[in-house]
Amino acid sequence: MRLSEIGEFGLIERLRAILESQVIGDDTAPIKIKEATLLLTCDVLLQDRHFKLNYPPSTIGWKAISVNVSDIVANGGNPLYALISLVLPDMDLSYVEEVYVGIKKASQFYSCEVVGGNVSKGEKLCIDVFMLGQAERFVGRKGAREGDGVFVSGALGDSKAGLELLLMEKKSYEDFELKLIEKHLRPTARIDFLKHISKYATASMDISDGLSSDADQLSKASDVRLSLLSEKIPISKELATFCKKHGKKPIEYALSGGEDYQLLFTHPPDRLNPFLSMVQIGIVEKGEGVFLDGRPLEPTGFDHFRMI
Amino acid sequence: MRLSEIGEFGLIERLRAILESQVIGDDTAPIKIKEATLLLTCDVLLQDRHFKLNYPPSTIGWKAISVNVSDIVANGGNPLYALISLVLPDMDLSYVEEVYVGIKKASQFYSCEVVGGNVSKGEKLCIDVFMLGQAERFVGRKGAREGDGVFVSGALGDSKAGLELLLMEKKSYEDFELKLIEKHLRPTARIDFLKHISKYATASMDISDGLSSDADQLSKASDVRLSLLSEKIPISKELATFCKKHGKKPIEYALSGGEDYQLLFTHPPDRLNPFLSMVQIGIVEKGEGVFLDGRPLEPTGFDHFRMI
Repeated sequence: MRLSEIGEFGLIERLRAILESQVIGDDTAPIKIKEATLLLTCDVLLQDRHFKLNYPPSTIGWKAISVNVSDIVANGGNPLYALISLVLPDMDLSYVEEVYVGIKKASQFYSCEVVGGNVSKGEKLCIDVFMLGQAERFVGRKGAREGDGVFVSGALGDSKAGLELLLMEKKSYEDFELKLIEKHLRPTARIDFLKHISKYATASMDISDGLSSDADQLSKASDVRLSLLSEKIPISKELATFCKKHGKKPIEYALSGGEDYQLLFTHPPDRLNPFLSMVQIGIVEKGEGVFLDGRPLEPTGFDHFRMI
Repeated sequence: MRLSEIGEFGLIERLRAILESQVIGDDTAPIKIKEATLLLTCDVLLQDRHFKLNYPPSTIGWKAISVNVSDIVANGGNPLYALISLVLPDMDLSYVEEVYVGIKKASQFYSCEVVGGNVSKGEKLCIDVFMLGQAERFVGRKGAREGDGVFVSGALGDSKAGLELLLMEKKSYEDFELKLIEKHLRPTARIDFLKHISKYATASMDISDGLSSDADQLSKASDVRLSLLSEKIPISKELATFCKKHGKKPIEYALSGGEDYQLLFTHPPDRLNPFLSMVQIGIVEKGEGVFLDGRPLEPTGFDHFRMI
């Protein structure tokens, strides 16, 4: 059987079985060392898959750190240390230095530190980041309870629209388009939600593959039904403008667009914090699956092996 | 300036300057969390750079874990947890499963646990391992003292000979050749030296780029001269046979051959433990540089960017 037949999630299941692991399945792996709960995660950015070489290199470095911070924060952790594993073609030193300027800026922004790494020569640029965080309490995908509200940390679908705009390679972009592109190139992990997630969330993950896929993962892990309302899903005014212009439906971008790096989490509805940009998009019910406006919602997000 | 001009070590210096890091430079990065000294490291195996797809896939998995354990042990740490970041072309599931069987076997052998990872699609297979270990005391490259002996944990140069034999793609191999190939394909990290390094070594690193390069690194980090004797450098009888057959000099394999994953360390000569396969190959003196039989030894080991 080829990987394209079994798909990303099928592959992960098979590999987990070989490792006989009980741990794998959340955005980070929680481990205990001397009373401390540490969270480990890794995420890679690959040339021509996650970025193109003509993107501003500092944004590539920024994003490589941000996507890992997003995983740590989603599980209630504070990002602390990172290693960078670089695979590099023979390219200009200044390009690699610019990538590192982005890495440094992101590390400062999230108050974490790059303490090491590795460089190897290869045919395409590949930035693999490993991150270690520390949590008061690990919050994974399992734990959503009947009666909880389902929340997201902000507008969804912007990154997908930004990517489409980038691929159009227009000579000039309007302001709202630049904002969407910025969301794709330089996402900000929701570190402002760290205390809230750590304190109140019953289940949590980041939205990296698209809401429909990620909600499906959370529903399965928690063994509950998530009932969502499409009118509650936050859409930015930039995405609304983009969709109007191109005759697209914002909800489809929100459901299937990956790489938004917003958080998806659950807790009792009255825990809503009005000082954070959180929005309740549904409720947790007994049962299984994800429902949107009363109808079953199929996961349509990103599968690394099936899509391409 | 291109990376091929500045070279691997020049590049690392430039990146370290951007990060303003004091930590980077050893085989692992030591961090402190709640009184615990944790060691972080990562190392990658790339298709067509570090291995070919026709190698037995389980050996690729074994080696990916072993090279990381080697770094942790070199710094006096016990390997505990690993993450695996995989980049995969669309290939047979059974191949990837075999790689994981090797990963599982190695994890069991070294008593560490793979707790997570990430899969992405790419053009070539890439196995990037991140490992966390714990040390009673961090032992880095800095710390060798005048009067210390210079030691290695076993025979050097086998892996390079094994690689050359592999590349010959012979229809059948003699026994000594198979042993050399095994050293290249399936190196064993010297976890048997862990307590010794942790307790006695003043400086330590693993020999992954070749003795001449790695000794140069240790000498610079410790700001001492290493005076080595070629007749003391341990050569396996398999390498001796190989060199005799092909008209090569074993010492050249020992000095420039990478990927042996033996340990290079220093401590007072009387700390020699006869129950371990350690050999004193020289002494630490005041001064700088590495000398072999009284003559300066140039680093001729592997540089990822200059060599290729």
